[in-house]
Amino acid sequence: LPKNDLLGGLLAAEFNKQSCLSRFQSAIYQKISPHKPSSFLVSKLREYEKLHKRCGPYTQSYNETLANINSGKAIGSTDCKYIVWISFSGLGNRILTLASAFLYALLTNRVLLVDRGKDMADLFCEPFPEKSWLLPTDFPLVNQFQSFGQNSPNCHGNMLKKNIINTSTNTLPAYLYLHLAHDYGDHDKLFFCDEEQTVLAKVPWLVLKTDNYFVPSLFLMSSFDEELSKLFPDKETVFHHLGRYLFHPTNRVWGLITRYYQAYLAKADEKIGIQVRVFEEGNGPFPHVMDQILACTLKEKLLPEVDEKGFISSPPENQKLKAVLLTSLSSGYSEKLKDMYWEYPTVNGDLVGIYQPSHEEYQQTERQLHNQKAWAEMYLLSMSDVLVTSSWSTFGYVAQGLGGLKPWILYKPDNRTAPNPPCRRAMSMEPCFHAPPFYDCKAKAGTDTGALVPHVRHCEDMSWGLKVVSGHDEL
Amino acid sequence: LPKNDLLGGLLAAEFNKQSCLSRFQSAIYQKISPHKPSSFLVSKLREYEKLHKRCGPYTQSYNETLANINSGKAIGSTDCKYIVWISFSGLGNRILTLASAFLYALLTNRVLLVDRGKDMADLFCEPFPEKSWLLPTDFPLVNQFQSFGQNSPNCHGNMLKKNIINTSTNTLPAYLYLHLAHDYGDHDKLFFCDEEQTVLAKVPWLVLKTDNYFVPSLFLMSSFDEELSKLFPDKETVFHHLGRYLFHPTNRVWGLITRYYQAYLAKADEKIGIQVRVFEEGNGPFPHVMDQILACTLKEKLLPEVDEKGFISSPPENQKLKAVLLTSLSSGYSEKLKDMYWEYPTVNGDLVGIYQPSHEEYQQTERQLHNQKAWAEMYLLSMSDVLVTSSWSTFGYVAQGLGGLKPWILYKPDNRTAPNPPCRRAMSMEPCFHAPPFYDCKAKAGTDTGALVPHVRHCEDMSWGLKVVSGHDEL
Ligand SMILES: Nc1nc2c(ncn2[C@@H]2O[C@H](COP(=O)(O)OP(=O)(O)O)[C@@H](O)[C@H]2O)c(=O)[nH]1
Ligand SMILES: Nc1nc2c(ncn2[C@@H]2O[C@H](COP(=O)(O)OP(=O)(O)O)[C@@H](O)[C@H]2O)c(=O)[nH]1
Repeated sequence: LPKNDLLGGLLAAEFNKQSCLSRFQSAIYQKISPHKPSSFLVSKLREYEKLHKRCGPYTQSYNETLANINSGKAIGSTDCKYIVWISFSGLGNRILTLASAFLYALLTNRVLLVDRGKDMADLFCEPFPEKSWLLPTDFPLVNQFQSFGQNSPNCHGNMLKKNIINTSTNTLPAYLYLHLAHDYGDHDKLFFCDEEQTVLAKVPWLVLKTDNYFVPSLFLMSSFDEELSKLFPDKETVFHHLGRYLFHPTNRVWGLITRYYQAYLAKADEKIGIQVRVFEEGNGPFPHVMDQILACTLKEKLLPEVDEKGFISSPPENQKLKAVLLTSLSSGYSEKLKDMYWEYPTVNGDLVGIYQPSHEEYQQTERQLHNQKAWAEMYLLSMSDVLVTSSWSTFGYVAQGLGGLKPWILYKPDNRTAPNPPCRRAMSMEPCFHAPPFYDCKAKAGTDTGALVPHVRHCEDMSWGLKVVSGHDEL
Repeated sequence: LPKNDLLGGLLAAEFNKQSCLSRFQSAIYQKISPHKPSSFLVSKLREYEKLHKRCGPYTQSYNETLANINSGKAIGSTDCKYIVWISFSGLGNRILTLASAFLYALLTNRVLLVDRGKDMADLFCEPFPEKSWLLPTDFPLVNQFQSFGQNSPNCHGNMLKKNIINTSTNTLPAYLYLHLAHDYGDHDKLFFCDEEQTVLAKVPWLVLKTDNYFVPSLFLMSSFDEELSKLFPDKETVFHHLGRYLFHPTNRVWGLITRYYQAYLAKADEKIGIQVRVFEEGNGPFPHVMDQILACTLKEKLLPEVDEKGFISSPPENQKLKAVLLTSLSSGYSEKLKDMYWEYPTVNGDLVGIYQPSHEEYQQTERQLHNQKAWAEMYLLSMSDVLVTSSWSTFGYVAQGLGGLKPWILYKPDNRTAPNPPCRRAMSMEPCFHAPPFYDCKAKAGTDTGALVPHVRHCEDMSWGLKVVSGHDEL
């Protein structure tokens, strides 16, 4: 076995190989991460695995805790407490929110259970030994997940708004629904106040729907900040470690990843990932986006310039072979790039091959193979040496986080023109929290949560977003 | 210099390197041909080069012979005689007819001059030392080339029909137009009778328009058959040698070839060329064509089967990397193939990468870059280890001939269904003559010209066509 086999102790050893090849083979394909998990994180994960084994689906504790829901309210303190993650939004979003939910589970000693939605089980291996992380299909609330929203009776924010619960409430419900989706309100956002956490801690079942990577705000809570610093001494590695711990492609997806890698990318001297996500009306490819991709990659010297005037001269020695993996719903960008490097020689003689695994033309969130390919592409991007991502896209965040890469971020175009400068280097490999609260729980007043501590900052790609940075090597 | 540098003496040495890199670099990319040119061919070519130098554009002899045209009739015997090739039809057709015209020039001691059409000079280097093969733009007839046809006054067939010339005519015109295009008539076809050759031999200027590789019929003429056997002891190498002698991609096209090869194909263990040319109404991709490509390549074990049921298992040792270069006007076939080898593992563990340089969607015979790409693709196909071609396509013939390859030929589909069997191996690497005469000149009667000699047979892909075969290793 290669020495990085369990990612420096991050992964538990007791797994069957054939059921999830990626867990064991990823070390053959990925570079060894320079970021070692802390021993505190490792022991915390081993502890969690024990907890999950004890409390997982259909264990005695699970069955007993389930009784609370059936009875309608929390019957005293339970042995195990749970956080149920509802499958919601695009795949990149889901990966980020699942990691957020897991971190919350670690911090609050809850057991994470995963709503399988249409395709979660086709995409990810079981991450915990012995007991599944998938919520049993006979879980009582499962048919209500879709309809849960801000105004649901058991919605935490709603109950706060209506004053049905507060810190001194004695009888708490058996479950609370946490609405942390992008459209959440001020009362929902009180989730990020330490006081509320003491209430939530008593509720056996928390059911979470979110499309936000809310980790940055956990760093701002006194309930968690100390433990977070111990778990992640290098702060920007939260998603990097948790992502590599949790998300192992199923064999089907692993086949997509390894076949593509071996057939097209393995022999290159350098691999450049370019993730193109266009949030505009209308069908691409858009000329301003193409201009921006070229402006960024050429200016930052990620790709060589071409010589449009001169024709080929004798091939220089030591020319490098660069493989560009471009992902996009449209095929236009990679085709233009491919034509450019076919039609003209590069000024330095380097060879550039362009690869795009799929071009699905439009987002098809629920088609099985579609998301298997999307997941394969995020993973393949994460195997790049150098990464360029699009603003606002969780698809890109997943790639950068898993790969431990600080990408060049293409600024979001305004008015159908390429921004100038076209891109900038990310401060950290962490994802951006797109809809953070701006509230000082103690002062009960608005505040700029991006200016409170040096390691939680506004994002490069979204001025109101928050992201965790390590604080060293700041830009 | 690599040892195959001048293709075993086929090429003349006195050339400037920079002006035509392909002439010197092709040996780095191409396999050494197992077919050596005969020393008779080599000396014939060196002789031709001397002739061309003496008679080429603007030489004294050229100027003198030109005077014949201006005076309207042949003024006695001239020092140099010419065959002028008119640029006509698609690029594959042009390459084949130009080779045919050159062979005719060799056999009749004529000088070949090439109408540059829209793009001949952008596509091909000068093949002969010192003097250009391009017809001067001030050549008197150049503006009439387009309008030359079966009924032109100087058309050889037309004059025969109207009895204006015959073997005993004393005053011959300064030029004759030879109409050997697919729509030619019985009188035009008398070109292939030895008697007529004695007449033609006296005419200083022959101007040829054809879209046919008429070499097979030259093998049936007693004027030429002996010399042809001495020039090409291995009979099926006619186009192979003449093609490699004549057609050197310009630096611009050579850039297209070498960049594509190095970026995408060089590292593969095996290169499989698939040339898909669909002569059907309507827009592809057509399912029956896709079925046929798969049926042929899988049945003939050119490509490995995929395992649609089983998922990936551990990668076997010694897996081969196969690169498929697929050319087609449509992108659909290569996309389907690419998806198939991405989505499923191969039964033998081999890796298959699919590459298609361009997909121009429709034939754009006159666009400069379009034909540069078409030429680059023919050349890239010729660099394959194994080749699959489409019936009736001269594009494929060029690739097989330059590459010295006996392709698997996809039978022409009938009625929008995939033929069964889908393909067969070619008998020889020679192109097919699509519209040969079926006439016995001596008997003055129809005859099956595909049954006269063992080395001229009907084609695999067109029952009425003729092609040259070597006679050994017959199928
Ligand atoms: N295969 C593939 N799918 C994509 C790509 N970009 C977007 N998608 C699809 O669109 C969805 C976008 O949602 P998400 O992953 O949450 O990313 P985001 O919307 O960019 O934050 C993905 O899950 C895919 O289904 C791409 O480059 N490749
Ligand atoms: N680039 C490219 N062009 C093609 C392809 N197939 C056909 N064409 C175009 O269509 C023309 C077809 O004419 P020709 O070369 O004489 O081949 P034929 O019609 O197949 O005998 C070519 O010269 C190209 O311009 C292809 O696979 N690639």
